[in-house]
Amino acid sequence: MNQNHIVKKYDEDLKQLNDLLARMGGLAEAQLKSAVDAVVRRDSDLAARTIESDDETDELEMKIDDLVVNLLALRQPVAADLREIISALKVSNELERVADCSTNVAKRAIRLNEYPAIRSTTTIPRMAQVAQYMVKDVLDAYIERNVEKAMDVWHRDDDLDALHTALFRELLTYMMEDPRNITPCTHMLFIAKNIERIGDHATNIAEMCNYLVNGGPFAESRPKTAAAARTKNGETSA
Amino acid sequence: MNQNHIVKKYDEDLKQLNDLLARMGGLAEAQLKSAVDAVVRRDSDLAARTIESDDETDELEMKIDDLVVNLLALRQPVAADLREIISALKVSNELERVADCSTNVAKRAIRLNEYPAIRSTTTIPRMAQVAQYMVKDVLDAYIERNVEKAMDVWHRDDDLDALHTALFRELLTYMMEDPRNITPCTHMLFIAKNIERIGDHATNIAEMCNYLVNGGPFAESRPKTAAAARTKNGETSA
Repeated sequence: MNQNHIVKKYDEDLKQLNDLLARMGGLAEAQLKSAVDAVVRRDSDLAARTIESDDETDELEMKIDDLVVNLLALRQPVAADLREIISALKVSNELERVADCSTNVAKRAIRLNEYPAIRSTTTIPRMAQVAQYMVKDVLDAYIERNVEKAMDVWHRDDDLDALHTALFRELLTYMMEDPRNITPCTHMLFIAKNIERIGDHATNIAEMCNYLVNGGPFAESRPKTAAAARTKNGETSA
Repeated sequence: MNQNHIVKKYDEDLKQLNDLLARMGGLAEAQLKSAVDAVVRRDSDLAARTIESDDETDELEMKIDDLVVNLLALRQPVAADLREIISALKVSNELERVADCSTNVAKRAIRLNEYPAIRSTTTIPRMAQVAQYMVKDVLDAYIERNVEKAMDVWHRDDDLDALHTALFRELLTYMMEDPRNITPCTHMLFIAKNIERIGDHATNIAEMCNYLVNGGPFAESRPKTAAAARTKNGETSA
């Protein structure tokens, strides 16, 4: 009976770990959304609030760290459970970096508002929407251990990269047209880069999901050469 | 006697963990150096070799992951030992990202060589040197559990940020002078950003060192408002 109790408590702890990850993911999504809203609406107050909300994600990350350490110390898990717990730690780290990227977007939004509006910020919200759904879906996939869903997110990163490349070229054109566009456009370049990086964090989580289920990388790997080729043509990899 | 043996083996495992971290740090430093050499000498072959060498860092990170999981499963450490092992995992993750930043610099070096040379690449190697020593010294500090040394690295990040801000402004000037500079200068902006991010990873490791020794953040914290102020004046935080 005592053994049962211990096992049950352990399951509850694991559930709590997944709940915390889901909450952290929800926060990271919301933060991205409000950061990009701040860019589109030129709303520096919203940007400032977005920056402040990063503390909440940091706190959640610390909570996850503490829970992991407690789980390891008290339950002394082995094999699959151990992998699961360690991977929760890594997922929370990726989510924390998603939140960082959103914070960076919000900081740039404030800088952008020091300059007249530049044309075409429509690609930015499109990129943000793709990234936001990638984060949402990959966390669902991770929690459900659904490799197919994770793989789907992993593929969607190509769409995000394509949008990023298109935007990069568009911004270069504006900069060449009028030197007054140069400074605001460089901020926009970094905003786009931060959103593109969120996609990379989502693909990292997808790979962890696959690793947990299948113990290895996706059969169809994203080779370094393809990444290099993308850099060659576009603006995605660095 | 058996107990002694277990403890001794455990110490050896911890030493192996630190050795792997030191090796990973050495590789990350070397990679940064050769990436920046590739930029300065306009040497695309060196850049390509630098990109390839990232595999070695990835392999080391996986080795560290495996060792950590084995340590947790076989030794079932508690309290301080547990914190130490979890934090090794986090340090290796930071080092992997340092290597990623260097790879990004190398990728941009190849792109840059498609354009005529731009003036003043002297700040880039200076930034790289500061970043390289930060990585080296913070790892030494971490392995020696030397908080004073870690704190010193943490402060040096301000120097790196100042160099980055100066370079950002310089690059904007070149872009405004001649539109043909715009594309190569955007690559240079991202190269500088990647080196600046390496400094951030080093300060993260400094904070982990302090956490291991003192169990909390540095007394003199790097507040969000200060970071925001830096963004206001310069080009550092996002």
